Amino acid sequence: MTAQLQVFVLTIFPEMFGTPLRQGVVGKALNDGIAAVQVINLRDFARDRHATTDDRPYGGGEGMVMKPEPLALAVQQARRQATAVPRVILLSPQGRRFTQEVAAELVHKPSLALVCGRYEGVDERFRQRYVDDELSLGDYVLSGGELAALVIIDVLTRLIPGVLGCSDSASNETFSRNLLKHPQYTRPPRFEGLEVPAVLLSGDHEKIREHRLLASARRTLERRADLLPEAHFSRDEIVLLQRHGLWHEIEAAAKRHKKP
Amino acid sequence: MTAQLQVFVLTIFPEMFGTPLRQGVVGKALNDGIAAVQVINLRDFARDRHATTDDRPYGGGEGMVMKPEPLALAVQQARRQATAVPRVILLSPQGRRFTQEVAAELVHKPSLALVCGRYEGVDERFRQRYVDDELSLGDYVLSGGELAALVIIDVLTRLIPGVLGCSDSASNETFSRNLLKHPQYTRPPRFEGLEVPAVLLSGDHEKIREHRLLASARRTLERRADLLPEAHFSRDEIVLLQRHGLWHEIEAAAKRHKKP
Repeated sequence: MTAQLQVFVLTIFPEMFGTPLRQGVVGKALNDGIAAVQVINLRDFARDRHATTDDRPYGGGEGMVMKPEPLALAVQQARRQATAVPRVILLSPQGRRFTQEVAAELVHKPSLALVCGRYEGVDERFRQRYVDDELSLGDYVLSGGELAALVIIDVLTRLIPGVLGCSDSASNETFSRNLLKHPQYTRPPRFEGLEVPAVLLSGDHEKIREHRLLASARRTLERRADLLPEAHFSRDEIVLLQRHGLWHEIEAAAKRHKKP
Repeated sequence: MTAQLQVFVLTIFPEMFGTPLRQGVVGKALNDGIAAVQVINLRDFARDRHATTDDRPYGGGEGMVMKPEPLALAVQQARRQATAVPRVILLSPQGRRFTQEVAAELVHKPSLALVCGRYEGVDERFRQRYVDDELSLGDYVLSGGELAALVIIDVLTRLIPGVLGCSDSASNETFSRNLLKHPQYTRPPRFEGLEVPAVLLSGDHEKIREHRLLASARRTLERRADLLPEAHFSRDEIVLLQRHGLWHEIEAAAKRHKKP
């Protein structure tokens, strides 16, 4: 079968991708040919005999900058091997933030090339000539884009139809509706003196749904009220939240956190 | 020597940690004994003969929930092996957001235990009894906390004094001052028709510093104006930004993005 997600990873640490791509959901999707990941070693495109892919920055300063030519040659190689023109994404702390929304957009691209920045960054001219998009995992600084590439591959793979056991498992998740998930419980019924909430054992599905929605709303208010401007509720849910005195609080928090 | 960062990772996929912990800055820090990572297999603490670590959720619904007992036993094991009581951190999309600021706080803890959630989450009672903190890499859903643990280990390792070549390399970085980094250039001076900006070749360090600050400010305004409320500038920098007509824009953006 043709892979529904084709990803090239451009890196100076191809070894890093050994074990993580073999486990769990991603390992299975690659094995089944639903997704395809090809790791391209940037050192193969360095022209000198030391396979140098970095050099000192013009203008001085700490650290090393990734040279433009090996990056350019590696992108050209990915283009030759791709089934469609790959979207070239540079992974760096300077990028726009990767989110579930960005993932939902990327999973529809026929081919992606993830460029793993390292050191102090990549030469700006490579970015100008070759990069379509620049993404950052979050507001923290990694040694390089390799772990970011693995994260993006994982998040995207889960969005391919059929990859998760149940077709709607992914769309039920936290960031598809901007509400944190309700607490979960499994056996045993009693653990270190703590019981499972009685309603979950009641078999009353309507009550369980209500209990879970209220728990989600409370948890989101408490921990991530910034998600609320984008959260959406059905009319029934709004009535329920009103009945429990939460709707007013949700509306106030949503207003307070509304983005400019 | 005693490791300055001791991390236990609790996971059902210990194999995933094979190759990523061997490369680059983290690989070197582990090799040198500056940091120590110990991966604990949750399946070793499952009591039945199938080594079950998950079960169906009470109240119904998709997916599986991680059982509380194997998690609890694994934390107890980490506690026994730790040099100090480990701070137990659950990795899940429900957590507070991991940032460079959170990293700077965590790197001072003598010992950490990172719990890799999987499936639909972990039993709430384990969280209540054992978890000190809950962190999320960003607003996207991963298959599990394993990649999140790797990211956190990488970010923290870079903050240990002496791990990076130059002692201030880490503090110069993007999120320590809430400004995106300026563009970087290295050899050759001409790449695919694009030249290195002349000022970077001038040798005039004051001019180079100014050029870079202006480029950082413009890039932050353009891509991540939400960082500006927390950005700080010296008096000289403010004068420079005023001279180039950027200060007014920065102040307006900072006001607009101020958190409630």
